[in-house]
Amino acid sequence: MPREVTVLTEAELRRVIHLDLNVVEVVEKAFAALASGKVVMPPIMSMAIPEANGEVDVKTAWIPGFEGFAIKVSPGFLDNPRIGLPSLNGLMILFSAKTGMVDALLLDNGYLTDLRTAAAGAVAAKHLAPATIDTAGVMGTGVQARLQLQAAHLVRPFRQALVWGRDPARAQACAIDLAATLGIPVRAEADPARLVAESQLVVTTTPAEEPILKAEWLHPGLHITAMGSDQQGKNEIEPAALAAADLYVADRVSQCEKLGELRSAITSGLWTRGAPPELGDIVSRKSTGRTSDAQVTICDLTGTGAQDTAIATFALAAARAAGAGSVIAT
Amino acid sequence: MPREVTVLTEAELRRVIHLDLNVVEVVEKAFAALASGKVVMPPIMSMAIPEANGEVDVKTAWIPGFEGFAIKVSPGFLDNPRIGLPSLNGLMILFSAKTGMVDALLLDNGYLTDLRTAAAGAVAAKHLAPATIDTAGVMGTGVQARLQLQAAHLVRPFRQALVWGRDPARAQACAIDLAATLGIPVRAEADPARLVAESQLVVTTTPAEEPILKAEWLHPGLHITAMGSDQQGKNEIEPAALAAADLYVADRVSQCEKLGELRSAITSGLWTRGAPPELGDIVSRKSTGRTSDAQVTICDLTGTGAQDTAIATFALAAARAAGAGSVIAT
Repeated sequence: MPREVTVLTEAELRRVIHLDLNVVEVVEKAFAALASGKVVMPPIMSMAIPEANGEVDVKTAWIPGFEGFAIKVSPGFLDNPRIGLPSLNGLMILFSAKTGMVDALLLDNGYLTDLRTAAAGAVAAKHLAPATIDTAGVMGTGVQARLQLQAAHLVRPFRQALVWGRDPARAQACAIDLAATLGIPVRAEADPARLVAESQLVVTTTPAEEPILKAEWLHPGLHITAMGSDQQGKNEIEPAALAAADLYVADRVSQCEKLGELRSAITSGLWTRGAPPELGDIVSRKSTGRTSDAQVTICDLTGTGAQDTAIATFALAAARAAGAGSVIAT
Repeated sequence: MPREVTVLTEAELRRVIHLDLNVVEVVEKAFAALASGKVVMPPIMSMAIPEANGEVDVKTAWIPGFEGFAIKVSPGFLDNPRIGLPSLNGLMILFSAKTGMVDALLLDNGYLTDLRTAAAGAVAAKHLAPATIDTAGVMGTGVQARLQLQAAHLVRPFRQALVWGRDPARAQACAIDLAATLGIPVRAEADPARLVAESQLVVTTTPAEEPILKAEWLHPGLHITAMGSDQQGKNEIEPAALAAADLYVADRVSQCEKLGELRSAITSGLWTRGAPPELGDIVSRKSTGRTSDAQVTICDLTGTGAQDTAIATFALAAARAAGAGSVIAT
C-alpha cells in the first residue's frame, strides 16, 4: 500500500498557524486530557552532549480523542550562536494514533514549541489569574517574553505591560516590540521588585539558575507563571514564594519536582504541602483554582508532551485545510 | 542562514545500503565505542498505547567520532496486518553532533533497524562463535531469521543451515529463501532440539514469551545469539542455559537485565554471576571472549541506540555518495 507523508517547513507552518485563541483552546484541551488520567506520557528522554555543549530532549504523549501523537525532538546547542545558528531548533513527527504510521514531518525549528509554550501560559492565566488584570509584567526579553504576553493578552486583555531583563537594551527592544504587537503601552522597568509590585500577572521566561523573583515581592492579587525552568539547575522563583503562595499549580507534578520551580522548593525543604494540583486538574475543575481576587497563585510550566501532540495535530489540520506542505511517497 | 535537510525514502535507502561487511564494520565500531565509556546513550523511551494495541520506542546515542547522532522512532502496532499495514515501521532522524541541526530524515519504515540488528548478530558471531562453523541454525521464520543468517554467513561462511519455526510452511519458505540467497543447502527442521544439536551457531529471532531453546540442548562448541527479546515479558532461552554457558554477553547490561534474556535469568534466581561483559567489551578486548572451540557462549541482543546512530550515519554517507534522496530547504 503506498503511503504518504506530509512535510511542512517552518515557513509553511508560520503561514498557517499563529498564536490565537484556537491554539490556546487545543492546548487547554490537552491539559484537561492530562487530568483524565487516560493520557500516556512517558518521562522526557534527555541526552546531554557535553563535547558540543548540547542537549537533546524528546517528548511525546498519546491523548485519547486525538487522531495522532507527536514525538518532538528539541536539540539545544548553546555554542551555535557563535557560528550564526540558533541554539534551539528541532522538529515534530506526527504519527497516526491508530496505526503508528508517520503522518507528517513538521520541520518547525522550534516554532510549534514556542506556540504551545505560550499557549500553556494563556491557559494558566485564564484559569488562575485574577479576573481583571490592569498591568502584566514579564521577566526576560527573548521570544517567550514576547509570546507569553501576547498569549496572556488573549485571555486577560490588560491595559499596559512592563518588561524587565538583565540587559536594559534588550528589555527596551522587547518593550517596543510588544507595544507594537499588542497596541498598548509597554515600558521597560529596570527594577524587578517594582515590576512585580505594579503587576497583577507576572510571567518569568528566563534560564535563571538563581531566583530572579523574591518571595518578599508577593502581594495580594498576584498571579505568577514561571515557564523558564525546564532543567535541573534552573530556578526563577525563590522557594519561599512557593511556600507562601495560596496556590501552587504544576503543569505536571512528576516533571516539576525534577525540572521546575518545585524542585528548588523541595530541595530547600520549604515545600511541605505534598503533591500539588496540576494545571489540567484546575482546567477540568477536579481541583479548586483561585477562590478570590486577593489570592497569590503560581503556575510552574516545564512543558509537556501532551502540548506537543496537541499543537502538532492542530498544525497538520490547519496545513491540510490551507493546502500547505509537500507530500513524500514512501 | 538557509538550511537543508536530506530526505531518503525506504526505496532510496534500499538502493544504496545493503547487508554487507561494511555495515557489519560500522556497527562493530559502535559496539567498540560503547565499551569506551564515552558514548552517551539514554534509556529507551517507551510508550504503550493499549487502545490501539501499539507501542512506540525511541532510541538514541551519541558516539564520539561520529558526525551525527540518530534518534530512532519505532512504532509497533500489532493490529496493522488486519488492515494490510505492517506492524513495524518508523524512521530515523539524523542530527549534526556539532550543532544539533537536522541533517537527514531517513523514512526507512524499519529497514535500517533490520540491517543494524542483523549486523549486531554478525558482530556477535565474529567475536564469540567458534572459528569454524559447519552448520548454522535459526529459530524463527521472519525477516530477521533471513537477515541474521545472511549476516552470520558474512563472518562465518558455514556449509549448510537449518530453520525451525512454529509454522512448518513458513519454516519451509524461509529455508527456500535462504538457500537461494546464500547458495548453500538450507533445510527446514521440525525438531528444535535436533536443530541445536546439529548446529555450532544458533540465532533465535522470535517474539517468544516462553523459552524455545532448552538448557539441556546446550553442547560443546555452541554459540547462541538471542535477538528476539527486546521487551519485558519476552524470553527465548531457558534461564538455566545462561547459568550453564561458559560465557554470557549482553549488548548492553542495563537493557538486557530489563528487556533481554538476562531479565528472565535474574528473575528466576538462576543468574548469580553479577554484571556480565558487554559485546563492546569483547570487541575491544577489554573482556575475554571465547577461549576454546569447546566452550558454550550466548550473546543477548536487545538493540542499542548506538547501532542506530552508526547505521544512520553510514546510510546518509552512502546516499550522498550515490546522489540519492531529495533535499528540503527549511
